[in-house]
Amino acid sequence: MTQLPHAGKRLHEKVRTPRTRRRVPPGMSPGTLLSHPEAPRPVIQVLAFGPEDTAEQIVEEPWQVQDFLDHWPVVWIRVVGLGDSEVIRAFGKLFTLHRLALEDVLDLHQRPKVEEYPHYLFMVAEIPQIGERFESNQLSLFLGPGFVLSFEEQEETCLQPVCDRIRAKRGRVRDAGADYLAYALLDAVVDSYFPLLEGYGERLERLENEVINRPRAAEVTEIHEVKRNLLRMRRVMWPQRDALSGLLRDSTPLVSAETRVHLRDCYDHVVQILDLLETHRELGADLMDMYLSSVSYHSNEIMRVLTVITVIFIPLTFIVGVYGMNFNAQTSPWNMPELEWYWGYPVVVLLMAAMAVGQILFFRRRGWLGAPRELDKTEGNETGGAKK
Amino acid sequence: MTQLPHAGKRLHEKVRTPRTRRRVPPGMSPGTLLSHPEAPRPVIQVLAFGPEDTAEQIVEEPWQVQDFLDHWPVVWIRVVGLGDSEVIRAFGKLFTLHRLALEDVLDLHQRPKVEEYPHYLFMVAEIPQIGERFESNQLSLFLGPGFVLSFEEQEETCLQPVCDRIRAKRGRVRDAGADYLAYALLDAVVDSYFPLLEGYGERLERLENEVINRPRAAEVTEIHEVKRNLLRMRRVMWPQRDALSGLLRDSTPLVSAETRVHLRDCYDHVVQILDLLETHRELGADLMDMYLSSVSYHSNEIMRVLTVITVIFIPLTFIVGVYGMNFNAQTSPWNMPELEWYWGYPVVVLLMAAMAVGQILFFRRRGWLGAPRELDKTEGNETGGAKK
Amino acid sequence: MTQLPHAGKRLHEKVRTPRTRRRVPPGMSPGTLLSHPEAPRPVIQVLAFGPEDTAEQIVEEPWQVQDFLDHWPVVWIRVVGLGDSEVIRAFGKLFTLHRLALEDVLDLHQRPKVEEYPHYLFMVAEIPQIGERFESNQLSLFLGPGFVLSFEEQEETCLQPVCDRIRAKRGRVRDAGADYLAYALLDAVVDSYFPLLEGYGERLERLENEVINRPRAAEVTEIHEVKRNLLRMRRVMWPQRDALSGLLRDSTPLVSAETRVHLRDCYDHVVQILDLLETHRELGADLMDMYLSSVSYHSNEIMRVLTVITVIFIPLTFIVGVYGMNFNAQTSPWNMPELEWYWGYPVVVLLMAAMAVGQILFFRRRGWLGAPRELDKTEGNETGGAKK
Amino acid sequence: MTQLPHAGKRLHEKVRTPRTRRRVPPGMSPGTLLSHPEAPRPVIQVLAFGPEDTAEQIVEEPWQVQDFLDHWPVVWIRVVGLGDSEVIRAFGKLFTLHRLALEDVLDLHQRPKVEEYPHYLFMVAEIPQIGERFESNQLSLFLGPGFVLSFEEQEETCLQPVCDRIRAKRGRVRDAGADYLAYALLDAVVDSYFPLLEGYGERLERLENEVINRPRAAEVTEIHEVKRNLLRMRRVMWPQRDALSGLLRDSTPLVSAETRVHLRDCYDHVVQILDLLETHRELGADLMDMYLSSVSYHSNEIMRVLTVITVIFIPLTFIVGVYGMNFNAQTSPWNMPELEWYWGYPVVVLLMAAMAVGQILFFRRRGWLGAPRELDKTEGNETGGAKK
Amino acid sequence: MTQLPHAGKRLHEKVRTPRTRRRVPPGMSPGTLLSHPEAPRPVIQVLAFGPEDTAEQIVEEPWQVQDFLDHWPVVWIRVVGLGDSEVIRAFGKLFTLHRLALEDVLDLHQRPKVEEYPHYLFMVAEIPQIGERFESNQLSLFLGPGFVLSFEEQEETCLQPVCDRIRAKRGRVRDAGADYLAYALLDAVVDSYFPLLEGYGERLERLENEVINRPRAAEVTEIHEVKRNLLRMRRVMWPQRDALSGLLRDSTPLVSAETRVHLRDCYDHVVQILDLLETHRELGADLMDMYLSSVSYHSNEIMRVLTVITVIFIPLTFIVGVYGMNFNAQTSPWNMPELEWYWGYPVVVLLMAAMAVGQILFFRRRGWLGAPRELDKTEGNETGGAKK
Repeated sequence: MTQLPHAGKRLHEKVRTPRTRRRVPPGMSPGTLLSHPEAPRPVIQVLAFGPEDTAEQIVEEPWQVQDFLDHWPVVWIRVVGLGDSEVIRAFGKLFTLHRLALEDVLDLHQRPKVEEYPHYLFMVAEIPQIGERFESNQLSLFLGPGFVLSFEEQEETCLQPVCDRIRAKRGRVRDAGADYLAYALLDAVVDSYFPLLEGYGERLERLENEVINRPRAAEVTEIHEVKRNLLRMRRVMWPQRDALSGLLRDSTPLVSAETRVHLRDCYDHVVQILDLLETHRELGADLMDMYLSSVSYHSNEIMRVLTVITVIFIPLTFIVGVYGMNFNAQTSPWNMPELEWYWGYPVVVLLMAAMAVGQILFFRRRGWLGAPRELDKTEGNETGGAKK
Repeated sequence: MTQLPHAGKRLHEKVRTPRTRRRVPPGMSPGTLLSHPEAPRPVIQVLAFGPEDTAEQIVEEPWQVQDFLDHWPVVWIRVVGLGDSEVIRAFGKLFTLHRLALEDVLDLHQRPKVEEYPHYLFMVAEIPQIGERFESNQLSLFLGPGFVLSFEEQEETCLQPVCDRIRAKRGRVRDAGADYLAYALLDAVVDSYFPLLEGYGERLERLENEVINRPRAAEVTEIHEVKRNLLRMRRVMWPQRDALSGLLRDSTPLVSAETRVHLRDCYDHVVQILDLLETHRELGADLMDMYLSSVSYHSNEIMRVLTVITVIFIPLTFIVGVYGMNFNAQTSPWNMPELEWYWGYPVVVLLMAAMAVGQILFFRRRGWLGAPRELDKTEGNETGGAKK
Repeated sequence: MTQLPHAGKRLHEKVRTPRTRRRVPPGMSPGTLLSHPEAPRPVIQVLAFGPEDTAEQIVEEPWQVQDFLDHWPVVWIRVVGLGDSEVIRAFGKLFTLHRLALEDVLDLHQRPKVEEYPHYLFMVAEIPQIGERFESNQLSLFLGPGFVLSFEEQEETCLQPVCDRIRAKRGRVRDAGADYLAYALLDAVVDSYFPLLEGYGERLERLENEVINRPRAAEVTEIHEVKRNLLRMRRVMWPQRDALSGLLRDSTPLVSAETRVHLRDCYDHVVQILDLLETHRELGADLMDMYLSSVSYHSNEIMRVLTVITVIFIPLTFIVGVYGMNFNAQTSPWNMPELEWYWGYPVVVLLMAAMAVGQILFFRRRGWLGAPRELDKTEGNETGGAKK
Repeated sequence: MTQLPHAGKRLHEKVRTPRTRRRVPPGMSPGTLLSHPEAPRPVIQVLAFGPEDTAEQIVEEPWQVQDFLDHWPVVWIRVVGLGDSEVIRAFGKLFTLHRLALEDVLDLHQRPKVEEYPHYLFMVAEIPQIGERFESNQLSLFLGPGFVLSFEEQEETCLQPVCDRIRAKRGRVRDAGADYLAYALLDAVVDSYFPLLEGYGERLERLENEVINRPRAAEVTEIHEVKRNLLRMRRVMWPQRDALSGLLRDSTPLVSAETRVHLRDCYDHVVQILDLLETHRELGADLMDMYLSSVSYHSNEIMRVLTVITVIFIPLTFIVGVYGMNFNAQTSPWNMPELEWYWGYPVVVLLMAAMAVGQILFFRRRGWLGAPRELDKTEGNETGGAKK
Repeated sequence: MTQLPHAGKRLHEKVRTPRTRRRVPPGMSPGTLLSHPEAPRPVIQVLAFGPEDTAEQIVEEPWQVQDFLDHWPVVWIRVVGLGDSEVIRAFGKLFTLHRLALEDVLDLHQRPKVEEYPHYLFMVAEIPQIGERFESNQLSLFLGPGFVLSFEEQEETCLQPVCDRIRAKRGRVRDAGADYLAYALLDAVVDSYFPLLEGYGERLERLENEVINRPRAAEVTEIHEVKRNLLRMRRVMWPQRDALSGLLRDSTPLVSAETRVHLRDCYDHVVQILDLLETHRELGADLMDMYLSSVSYHSNEIMRVLTVITVIFIPLTFIVGVYGMNFNAQTSPWNMPELEWYWGYPVVVLLMAAMAVGQILFFRRRGWLGAPRELDKTEGNETGGAKK
């Protein structure tokens, strides 16, 4: 059972490195902003653009953003790192954002959601991280007239292509408003789920092969792992779906009709992901059943053959025991006269051989011995042929 | 265990030939059109018709379609093969189609859907392919005033009858508008699911027979395969149902009241398919349970009989062992005087025979030996008779 | 394993007599009328009545019905047998019925439904057939002003009482309109499910008794059969419920307020049937669990007792083996001097007896032998008593 | 297996005393009133009251009720026993009640419901009966302006407190209208479910204790019984909930705003009952799983110990068998010279002892013998301690 | 099996100390106020505050509260202990509260809910208690213009931070109205669920480690315990969610728009808790499956090795038995001449050694012996490596 401790050890390491995230402790005043001491210091990156031109700068202080807001059609303020609650508070003052929304930026246990405030939308999405265990980082997004203010825990690579598209004027992001930028970011996040999901799908396919051919305990752990990851992903995607469908139904003037068409596409992708998730989950459950049935089939098979061998020898051992008895043939003609017969020994040996052969034939015909496997083989082929 | 590797090998081959479809990589600008290098070059087939006449032509360039659109009541442009994104882009320009819809034509991971755009409807359906594993090809359909523009990955035989009906003026397709044509195509797609589903139903019936009579490991694999195919089919049919029900509820002027009646019929068929799917899935799950119970019943039966045989001989072997002991009868009258008795041996043999018979009778009465099977047989008949 | 082949044979026979129904092949023009060559020729029975009088006639041709329609308040045209599509077409022309509805009359794979057309309602219901396997025949019904046109595959006995009530002027059917007649027919169909359902309920009760007392493989097959029948019945009743609830919500002028009250009652019955169905299905699933647990309990019990017997004799056999060794007592005083002792043999026999008794007591106290069963018995009675 | 037949017998007795209820046979005219020949004759109890005074009388004929209706603010006509359909018909005429509602009074297979008729409400509730098996009797209730007409199968004790409250002028029932009386009756019915449900809860707690400590087959039957009772209760409570929520939403003038507040409370109780039901049902399902796992754990434990004992003795028996062979030492120095050695026997005995000890140590270290149980014990305590 | 009785004992103690809560017995007049004899006497704590100042006092009689209500913007009357129904009745009179709401304060079996009365809102929440078993105490809350009246069974520590915030003027509670205070209390209650839930999560992680490495029966009990606690918590949180969502949708003037934003946040937290609950429940179910599969894997492994050992020795024992037979070699040259051969004994010993080695090799190659475990180990590593 060496592979199981191994699997266990792997899990144990995960337990020893818990997530550093901290929820606001119960009893705190709602809207309290608490940053994590170990979280990286925020870097404020400003990316301002219009159809003609773009400007990029890393600013030190939130108030420096104001200048961009005054001169550019769309300004994307990208804050990476949540290590300083003062910065978040300053942005809150600058854009008059609600304290609860600001709290949600720092409290990293949020579900994906879209909240409508009078002058802006607040969105939360979860960006999947690559790793053995499904984890996600939070992306918080404020969408107001002419600006998108985004907060990431660490620099997320899946948002990079959007930056590049702005700089290179690829796609229509430069020509559209802030709402399109927000959509483009959400879309990038949602699309980053597909490779992960395909990875899980391939793992399940591989596991299925293994389970059928050679069921091993390590597979249970792995199937369980995949199932748990799918479960975690589902927990993130369901609220994402609700948030997007709410956004599609709402009539906020911050999102234009054209962007709504794009959001519908993004919503479609989320629904696709959920579809795949559910299918994978069902396959995982089926796999577990197949594993159990495969293990029990193999196990029964072996035990049966072993027992048959025992059963063949038990009566023979009895017979040789009979002729090992020390009855005194001298005191009575009834006391084991066979021992004195001329053909005594050969007859007993033949008798035992006949018994063994008889038993083997009997078990074979009943399909208790190897025979059914031979049978299975030919029938398996027949079935395979009949299926075509 | 020969049939299992066999089944495994079959599965393995499938894994080695993955689907050549490719999703737009995450991070691409939405609305990017990417065609597959290995996909066949598009062939543009134009089928124009009115109540009186029809015209058919294979055109080289999308703009050549314009002529037909100007002169015929209904024009069906059937594009087969998606190997050239330029062709799709040209049609997009010709009919002013949305970039996202065009992207969906090429990105073959779409769920069936109906999207309403200002001047046209965009529909996606999945055409089932015949094969061991349930796969489907995408049919993308634009329905506008006076035209239907359809895209197929490869020429689908299930759409052929619609062509034939147009040519032969069978049914009312020639007399109705483009909306009826779109309906006729959807209907043809939906109806092509029925033979597949019936095939699965028959396979389940056959498997049930086999599982009851002679449960074998190959059946697990096959049941699992059918279940997985049903799961995949369900993943396609649920959104198909939603799409059709949305189309029925919507009040787009592109679909006439008369065609809506037909769509309701088509919707009914989809619901029937889903009904059958769910029933088959439940039967599949039940079958798995029956298999397990059948295997464990047979296995227990065999092990019990084998163990009973062992148990009958174990005490007998002990007894013959007793009389094989070498106690010196000379040194004491208590040392195995039986060995010297006149009737010693016959008494022991009879004693052992009595023990064996006693055990057999005891096990028989308790129903641990073959007896219960005899009993079952007669009772099974009684039950069978009582049921009538 | 004799009862299993038997059960299998029964199933096999069912498979050999598949339903003769045929779905319109995919690709046919929608609204195509195809009758079954083997289906019985239609018999057209006209039953016209008013509060005062009734008239009955079997007509040859559909157009002969017109005369009745002109002179009687309510006319029930009952067509039995679907062997001639011409007759259906003629009725379609006479009452200007939609082609799709006519197609549904002949294509016997419909789910129960109610479809509203401008001048008439089209209803489909399924009439359960008595038999081992749940099957149902289709009843198609057109309800228009002053007429009910019904189509049956064969003469259904469950509609007979409605005929009798019309003839004998029992109930209010003679005083009410065509809508009440349609309701009366639906009600008769729905009520014919109750006896079947009660039959299944009783079978489940009987099976429960058997499963607890003496679990046998034949019961798995029967439980599975009942579950499958319930599944099939559910597939028919769910759409029936939806159809009726739709009819109750709709505001078609063809159904009077008074009849709506009656339809609500009919709807209640369908919901009751579905309630019972679900309860029975859950009982069936529980029964399967009980069967498995019962089988495994019995099996474990037997194997344990058998193993205990083996374990008692194994050490004894070892001991007698020891004294069967042929060490030469002459060559050494250490070589098995026991064999020469005066009390050697009795001591060994007593030792073995003591061992056997010790083992039995040990196993008994641990509850591994028959003892727990004795214990169970008394406790079972106590529990039984305590429960009261 | 003595407790199982016992349980079976108990079930059998139940089967032999089926419910005497009879559904109107299919095919009867809707609205037909059929009373049960064995049902008790109805007793008509009139309880009229106003804020000031009350009057009580047992009347012979329904028309005698009219006098009370004319002179008292609220009249409760309580009919106990359904043995005479004439009485029900007479009440139907007196209050102009719908025939279908009257049929439902007699046809005791109704689900709880509330039906609104133009001048009165018709309610059906189910009163739970105390007993091993969950059964319920029907309470039918007509609520009109100034009167409540209730029908019971037999005198229900759970309604008695309402009578007492009217007589003693406790609570506000005397000051309120007929709607409050109807509510008070429904509330009394709903509250009578709580003690039953608590009984099931306690039984499940007790069963859990037993299943963990000493899993026995009798518990399967009892868990199954509780689960089935919960299932039956749920079948009654779900429609009760729907009926009450419908009543709350409806705007019938027969129910005052104040009574509606009370009905909301009653609705809350029903929802509580359903909550508890579902929780208990899940606990029941878990219990079944625990039982199976507990049985299989115990069983495996025993089999393992027994097999280990066998495995220890099998090689020893082989060795003593070796020295029981009769090779002639005289014919060859290679023929078992050990038998002649001086230390031959002691060496063999020591060898066998060493083998036995070695095997025991090996199995112990692998945790195959009793050792893991000792280990478990201490660990169990550690775990228990760690949990605090 | 020592740890199981231990677990059982723990459970038993719980059963012996049932909850002292009492439901109003069925049949009581609705709105009856019954206090528990053993419940602590109520302590009435008044906390009045405005933006400027606060006042605190413990009053003896409810009417003394009036003075505060007249002079302060917001008054929180916190009643701790429900031992005197007179106090509750007096408050009911003072604030003209509905009798049913007052009954719900004392009847501690309420589900969380929000009820709207004309001049006030009545809310019920459940405060989780720390302990092995999930239990919760009821918090009843009346929110009227300018006052919050709360009832607790005992002083709840989770409400203390709200008191502190009022006293210290932290957060905006002092500046806002009574509705914000009510929200702050609800929020404190909801947040107190998170630590519990995280505790369950950690327990499940630990159990998973243990189940994979060393499955023991104690874990079944613990998994079951966690699952049951999650079930109980879910029963409390679902109605809490419904209550909050109802409050968000309602348009009561008692709750300001600003507070509604905060309530939405609180609602989000409840939904998060439910999400986690469901995920944990699924993990718990999976864990149970893994436990069973792990136990059965280990068990099969052991039984197989043991059986293989038996099977190796059984034929050898037979062979030595053969040469233990006492056939008289003198009477016939066919009677066991081997015994007289020069190489007889060595040949037999070598034969047996060859047989044993052959069997071991055969079983090894088939993977029935220890070999597959060695194999597993290396493969496990390969798999582990392949996964990266």
